[in-house]
Amino acid sequence: MTITLDTPPILIARRQPPQLEQVEALLASQVDGTRSPLEAALAQLIAAGGKRIRPRLVLLMGGLLAVDPAPLLYLAAAIEMLHTATLVHDDLVDGASLRRGVETLNARASAAASVLVGDFAFTRAARLVLATGSLSAVDMFTEAMATIVNGELTQIARPRGIANREEYFDWIGAKTAALFELSTGAPALLSQSGMEDASSARRFGYAIGMAFQIMDDVLDFTSDAAHLGKPSGQDLRQGILTLPALIYLEAHPDDPSLRLLINRQRLPEADLVQLVDSIRQGNSIQQAIEVAQGFVNDGLSALDQLPDGLERSELEKIARSVVDRHG
Amino acid sequence: MTITLDTPPILIARRQPPQLEQVEALLASQVDGTRSPLEAALAQLIAAGGKRIRPRLVLLMGGLLAVDPAPLLYLAAAIEMLHTATLVHDDLVDGASLRRGVETLNARASAAASVLVGDFAFTRAARLVLATGSLSAVDMFTEAMATIVNGELTQIARPRGIANREEYFDWIGAKTAALFELSTGAPALLSQSGMEDASSARRFGYAIGMAFQIMDDVLDFTSDAAHLGKPSGQDLRQGILTLPALIYLEAHPDDPSLRLLINRQRLPEADLVQLVDSIRQGNSIQQAIEVAQGFVNDGLSALDQLPDGLERSELEKIARSVVDRHG
Repeated sequence: MTITLDTPPILIARRQPPQLEQVEALLASQVDGTRSPLEAALAQLIAAGGKRIRPRLVLLMGGLLAVDPAPLLYLAAAIEMLHTATLVHDDLVDGASLRRGVETLNARASAAASVLVGDFAFTRAARLVLATGSLSAVDMFTEAMATIVNGELTQIARPRGIANREEYFDWIGAKTAALFELSTGAPALLSQSGMEDASSARRFGYAIGMAFQIMDDVLDFTSDAAHLGKPSGQDLRQGILTLPALIYLEAHPDDPSLRLLINRQRLPEADLVQLVDSIRQGNSIQQAIEVAQGFVNDGLSALDQLPDGLERSELEKIARSVVDRHG
Repeated sequence: MTITLDTPPILIARRQPPQLEQVEALLASQVDGTRSPLEAALAQLIAAGGKRIRPRLVLLMGGLLAVDPAPLLYLAAAIEMLHTATLVHDDLVDGASLRRGVETLNARASAAASVLVGDFAFTRAARLVLATGSLSAVDMFTEAMATIVNGELTQIARPRGIANREEYFDWIGAKTAALFELSTGAPALLSQSGMEDASSARRFGYAIGMAFQIMDDVLDFTSDAAHLGKPSGQDLRQGILTLPALIYLEAHPDDPSLRLLINRQRLPEADLVQLVDSIRQGNSIQQAIEVAQGFVNDGLSALDQLPDGLERSELEKIARSVVDRHG
């Protein structure tokens, strides 16, 4: 499966936090592109970018919790670098040939290059998080990476596809929410916050990460090719049932097309198009959006526990925009 | 290329350091085999083992430098886990189907599984090294991983094969000596040793790592199939010129077979067998062993700078055995 984890345009705050440019400089400094072919490949991946939602969350939460600027920048860069590393390995694992409309390293070079460039990015991410000087931040970072990797292998090792909400939530919790949780939880470890704030900060990130992925999966059904850059129903085409399909399945437990997909069998394209239409026409999409909204609400109530401030308003806007952009 | 990094039987000290069993327990505890298919795969790799030369070096050097037992055990397990992780990814990069006579994960499962199991092993290695509580040890650990990965990618990205000693030393320095250097250098960071002892400890590990790999490469020429478990000349067969071949090349710069290999072209098996014979018959092997002996001597002189003690004698024995086993 190709998973788009980038933030959609609406999530880009109009006021760019000034530190975000420093994060970019820090990322670029990790790979000056001159010392080895490996660094050149990684430099290209970093420059190709994405919207940097994770570093934005780090900077805002860190600002809210009064973290010193220097370790906060290192943390923001570390998490974006970790994200880049997991994308490189995911593209290999999924056999994806395109990401963000650009040929993947796996397609362009080789599996060998992808493994090694991803590994190298992990080492640079580790170096950045070490620069925070906080062993507990490094520890949370490492555990997030373990969660992501473990989730992906559980998915490929499963004898059949995802067939219910619980499996789906486990999966997106690992592949997306874990890194959002790290982005908001780790700043708390660098601050003087108490356990309670740290817990609220983590809960906020996890919740909006879940909502973010659900809305991404909804978008795969609702967007047309012109808007999304690919035909709708791509997840189903790759045999993956996401929340809208699972909700539809709950109402139609014997749907033969879904049963075939769950059993990892091929579905003729005509049947697939019909299935996508059926899911779009029912209320599964709306129900999925409501589930996402529920996560956003949980995130907002966690946010309410944190100190008030400009950054909290910005975090609230980001949280609300996750669902509102599709409203 | 398949690279055997395991220590040969002669290197197994007769007296097993008692802490080595604790290291084994610590490794096993990282992967209890019940929580996920990923952990089960990793548990199998760890159980398959190898001779644990790196943890032995950690324990001996740590003992010599009076490091506390608990962080030392974590460090020893971390380095062995890192070694395991790099082997899993190397097997994928090299497309190797066998390691230690057992089918590799890459051959048995898939590239995807190999990437993820290797990544997971990295996270477990990171967790173990974090348990030492030393940010500087974690930093040295991360840099060693970066060196290993960078060396491997430099090798696959090179337009032609290794063609001189400098390239060869760079390559084995990254793929083998870096981890040996970490094994002896990191314990110094956990001790009260001064900079000078730390530098000697690193130099010792690096030097015997270099000698170790050179002797491994010599063995590929001198051993017969029955002894090595594979026909001699495997490195050349995979297009890799190691030190004996490079020394032969210095004396025969226009050798057409070696030129073909350097240009990454296929060499007929008959020509290859003849080439291996020519290299074996000349004095290239002896010269290569002398180069290895030079590294051992350098390692021993570094060791002389360190405090005297039982562990130093053990380390000296290990260093001497690297070359003597082939004498």
